[in-house]
Amino acid sequence: MYTTLSISQVQAARERIAPHVRHTPLVSLPSPQGNMPPQLRLKLENLQVTGSFKARGAFNNLLQLSAQQLAQGIVTASGGNHGLAIAYAAAQLRTAATVYIPETASADREARIAAWGAQVIRFGSNPSDALAQARAHGAAAGLAFIHPFDAIRTLEGTGTLGLELLDDLPDIDYLLVAIGGGGLISGMAAAIKQQKPHVRIIGVEPVGAASMHAAVEAGHVVELADVRTIADTLAPRAVCDLTLGLTQQYVDEIILVDDRQMVLAMRWLWAECNQLVEPAGAAVIAALQSGAITIPRDAAPVALICGGNAAAESVFQHYS
Amino acid sequence: MYTTLSISQVQAARERIAPHVRHTPLVSLPSPQGNMPPQLRLKLENLQVTGSFKARGAFNNLLQLSAQQLAQGIVTASGGNHGLAIAYAAAQLRTAATVYIPETASADREARIAAWGAQVIRFGSNPSDALAQARAHGAAAGLAFIHPFDAIRTLEGTGTLGLELLDDLPDIDYLLVAIGGGGLISGMAAAIKQQKPHVRIIGVEPVGAASMHAAVEAGHVVELADVRTIADTLAPRAVCDLTLGLTQQYVDEIILVDDRQMVLAMRWLWAECNQLVEPAGAAVIAALQSGAITIPRDAAPVALICGGNAAAESVFQHYS
Repeated sequence: MYTTLSISQVQAARERIAPHVRHTPLVSLPSPQGNMPPQLRLKLENLQVTGSFKARGAFNNLLQLSAQQLAQGIVTASGGNHGLAIAYAAAQLRTAATVYIPETASADREARIAAWGAQVIRFGSNPSDALAQARAHGAAAGLAFIHPFDAIRTLEGTGTLGLELLDDLPDIDYLLVAIGGGGLISGMAAAIKQQKPHVRIIGVEPVGAASMHAAVEAGHVVELADVRTIADTLAPRAVCDLTLGLTQQYVDEIILVDDRQMVLAMRWLWAECNQLVEPAGAAVIAALQSGAITIPRDAAPVALICGGNAAAESVFQHYS
Repeated sequence: MYTTLSISQVQAARERIAPHVRHTPLVSLPSPQGNMPPQLRLKLENLQVTGSFKARGAFNNLLQLSAQQLAQGIVTASGGNHGLAIAYAAAQLRTAATVYIPETASADREARIAAWGAQVIRFGSNPSDALAQARAHGAAAGLAFIHPFDAIRTLEGTGTLGLELLDDLPDIDYLLVAIGGGGLISGMAAAIKQQKPHVRIIGVEPVGAASMHAAVEAGHVVELADVRTIADTLAPRAVCDLTLGLTQQYVDEIILVDDRQMVLAMRWLWAECNQLVEPAGAAVIAALQSGAITIPRDAAPVALICGGNAAAESVFQHYS
């Protein structure tokens, strides 16, 4: 399978979405605690609008819809962050959004999406089931359906994060990125590797939702029978041809991490630099802490902190 | 009263502490939610080592102690963040630290300080009582006592944050800074105003612990009979001659905020850019949200997020 995502496509997306998204900070961590690479940097995409990288793909999709499509409204599905990004982008662009979320999604995620005025519908036990229903809804009602990862415009959006990172750190040599449906790593890896082929790109997936790992091993998309992970935003049952194709071309390695390792990594991020993130956002740190990756001490690695939407309500209640 | 803190002193401190502290990110927030200044920037000092600006003063003190003083160990007191910074700096410089904290300090704060190997002693109902006891301990045992704000070396340390901010944003025109003992605002205001006198510097204090506001009104240091605020790190009973003198010279205005406003501001920071901070860190946002300050829409204001050490344990337990 051969998929293409050109640099010029990604550059056009970057210009398109620039008024709506943030250039997020890349931070150094001198003397990081624990057995971590001494020159590790974090790209804090958890500071993006709506708390994750998903805003990039959401805007790149919505800004290319026709006036008629925008007037009719849009429909999507998401374990949480894509739905939130679509709800936010729809509010900014004054269109109506319907967001399907799995029955298992937390009340916190539902509330954050609904706060932007989107209609939230709970359906199915898994993001993939909610996705199928959202797609059917869009087809039946004639509404634009925005896929969280199986769409070239979504990948152009994630690709912008690759270009931004090359601007931040032209000498980057290692990049760690979490994998859910594979949209983030596919777009970033395509944008980076076509310009800097020597950068080593490492994917990180929950052992209980290793849909990309299974697809790469099999050589084709595999639907997992069972998905079990606390990283709800990394939990689709299957990747897609588009993200698998780009991953096969541009990703060097996939590391698996378990739930316990992700919670330890969440604690590390909080102790090290007061970043509270969701499990998915800490997965790349878990991969480093687990010792599964060896990075030379003189390397300039970047861990992409993809999302921060942890369930923090209990903290505010503590102070209220 | 006339106090001086020269730019050259602060520059020397900046060079001294540079290997040990972080240049923290200044982030823009395009289209911020709520009725906020459209060009508001946040200086995220919550990403500093140990989660607050206190690391700057801690290192500037410890790095100027003699080898004999370092060998004997140091003693300090703190509502939390200064103690944590001293414990961390002591661990890095291989000296022993004793940290007095008030009886009222949370278990979370105690655990974070103890994690760096410091001896933690609970004493008194208020940071000021713990301070007096720590000072007496230091005098009796012949140990160096490091005051959290009533010490020129501590203010040289906070001044480095002013220099850093001028490098980040030479065109800054408004700066909002929280006030506890006044060490942060004194050092920053002195460093900034001596170079850019037109920058308007606004202090923010809890209405239940308004020790600087009272001192400025009275024209001398005032000891508050009662202190009540959820912002435990802004709660000393009294400022000091040193910080009052610099505040009188360099701070334009002091705004008071209440506990409810600080919790709303914590929620805003979380919703806007996924920064979970302690109440003190959100006080400047509370001042903006309260409407007590009017900032022109074309201004380039900075809100200094001074510390992030919120009690987040419940979040990790949620995921474990």
